[in-house]
Amino acid sequence: MDSKIFSEDTLRRFAENVFKTIGCKDEDAIQAADVLLSSDLKGIDSHGVARLSGYVRLWEKSRINATPDIKIVHETATTATIDGDGGLGLIIAPFAMNVAIEKAEKYGSGWVSVRNSNHFGIAGYHALKAVAKDMIGFAMTNASPLVAPTFTTERLLGTNPMCYAFPAGKYPPIVVDMATSAAANGKLEIAQRSGETIPEGWVQTADGSSTTNPHALKTGGSLLTLGSDPEHGSHKGFGLSATVDILSAILSGANYGPWVPPFVGFLDPPANPVGKGIGHFLGAMRVDGFRPLAEFKNHLDNWIERFKSAKPIHLGQLVIVPGEPEFAAEKERKIKGIPLPDSVVMDLNELALKLQIDVLN
Amino acid sequence: MDSKIFSEDTLRRFAENVFKTIGCKDEDAIQAADVLLSSDLKGIDSHGVARLSGYVRLWEKSRINATPDIKIVHETATTATIDGDGGLGLIIAPFAMNVAIEKAEKYGSGWVSVRNSNHFGIAGYHALKAVAKDMIGFAMTNASPLVAPTFTTERLLGTNPMCYAFPAGKYPPIVVDMATSAAANGKLEIAQRSGETIPEGWVQTADGSSTTNPHALKTGGSLLTLGSDPEHGSHKGFGLSATVDILSAILSGANYGPWVPPFVGFLDPPANPVGKGIGHFLGAMRVDGFRPLAEFKNHLDNWIERFKSAKPIHLGQLVIVPGEPEFAAEKERKIKGIPLPDSVVMDLNELALKLQIDVLN
Repeated sequence: MDSKIFSEDTLRRFAENVFKTIGCKDEDAIQAADVLLSSDLKGIDSHGVARLSGYVRLWEKSRINATPDIKIVHETATTATIDGDGGLGLIIAPFAMNVAIEKAEKYGSGWVSVRNSNHFGIAGYHALKAVAKDMIGFAMTNASPLVAPTFTTERLLGTNPMCYAFPAGKYPPIVVDMATSAAANGKLEIAQRSGETIPEGWVQTADGSSTTNPHALKTGGSLLTLGSDPEHGSHKGFGLSATVDILSAILSGANYGPWVPPFVGFLDPPANPVGKGIGHFLGAMRVDGFRPLAEFKNHLDNWIERFKSAKPIHLGQLVIVPGEPEFAAEKERKIKGIPLPDSVVMDLNELALKLQIDVLN
Repeated sequence: MDSKIFSEDTLRRFAENVFKTIGCKDEDAIQAADVLLSSDLKGIDSHGVARLSGYVRLWEKSRINATPDIKIVHETATTATIDGDGGLGLIIAPFAMNVAIEKAEKYGSGWVSVRNSNHFGIAGYHALKAVAKDMIGFAMTNASPLVAPTFTTERLLGTNPMCYAFPAGKYPPIVVDMATSAAANGKLEIAQRSGETIPEGWVQTADGSSTTNPHALKTGGSLLTLGSDPEHGSHKGFGLSATVDILSAILSGANYGPWVPPFVGFLDPPANPVGKGIGHFLGAMRVDGFRPLAEFKNHLDNWIERFKSAKPIHLGQLVIVPGEPEFAAEKERKIKGIPLPDSVVMDLNELALKLQIDVLN
């Protein structure tokens, strides 16, 4: 597929423009664009500006509120529940993480469950806000049901990512940011476009059989949980996904399980919601609440060095510590720019024409 | 394998007797035995009284301190680091969880990282202490290195379990308690005893090849992380295991990665420790710090009912919610007793003779 390279700045201005045009306040547009650009810079192309038209389609259907009144509805010294008033998760989650960080500054830790939100971009962005304050960051979100737990053919869970992020010293932070399904939907989309088959263990058909067909979700199939099958621990992936769902939605009053509203505008939300919008869970813990910061960072550096120097199976393929490829991509793309496939550029320019803003070129 | 059934009470008295005989205070012996019995009752036979002789062998080597001075060495309102003084994890972890719960009672949440500890039994026991107070419980621990991260042949991580536990209303709590490896060591031991092969994806050989030989760990092989191979997300299992290692040990000042001392008496700890003993991480968050308790429990009951009523793949095999089999086993074993294989009974009776206490019969 052909692609064209854009500077970070160009795409950032474009995204800010889109969000302003649908009615976001300037500061919110800047915040929302920052989450998307962070994803594009880190090479997580599925969660960056390529999603802009998806957000706009939900706004057109009045399923995203561009001017939400985000509020704390319940709290203790270190816990809070936030109602996002149907706004962009890209704005609500940073608001919630700031609350968690303020609580952690005062009391050592802070934990926020969020309801009435929408897709929040990459979990790592939010967790890294805590890391920037020398805290450990936690971020998770539930998502539209595409994943079947072990032993059923029904899609009851989203790809429900969880993220843990830790500040290192000499090295970039450790960022564990992972869907709790065996494969994320983005990998499936790549196979769909290229016409290739997918490995066994990613997807099951409508009757629960194993398949290598990347299109099986269109005929009632489902993604599988991390572990893929019972013999390889699919119940563990299910347990992790359940944890994300409970912390994000049962705790906050958002929709959970099969009631989570779909991210796409062409599918209607379930008629009988059990809560409001989708849910997130964010947390921050001060490292120096446990141990002097420099000691922690020195030992984490030592941990990283030990893992990077481990004997490889294949010559030249070293252990990859969590977050490493994304920081490497960011370093490169800050300089060389961000490649967008022509199909994405076309989609964004159709969006620009619709919104009557400057196209990308 | 032949087995004999013992009452909970008989095994509990036996375990208490063992711990008292090696010098534990009465209350500590009672606590340590309670953790082991909870495991036996829940059907997690690998972590119950069958481990008694293992703990004693470490004590004989002066690697377990029967009369530890467990201390908080660093704290904020909601965080603490505890030094376990080389004691039994079975005593230190409940002490630490009590600290977390007290902090949560005052401030909404409490988080404790532990160093200088030993094996703490099943993670679920500790997380459920928080659930008993209508809190959400978190428990994790690092462990002796048996697991190779993606792309290396070296054993750098333990099976590093993580546990999340949530109070439900009508139903038993949801307890996600899982090793972050594809298969726990216990499953391997079952295959070793029965002479059967194991599935691909559990273990690799010393050169990093796939194997179905359950004895491969004896010739330099390693367990694999959850996900089993890169195509199925082994980097996710690695990320989860890394998270456990960092929260349990880098945060507390315990040993991490390949420096974690082995649980077995016949292997010496690494000569160049990077910390003290092994590490745990425990946490408690008040549910009513986020939302009224009854609302949370009602929605979690609804979640459970929806998942249990999901369409099965195989007739009669319903979705198993996390923790369900263990609570079912507990209910049954409370009445019918706990079966121990003859080999375990023989081992325990050799231990009894050595310690000059009453044998099991």
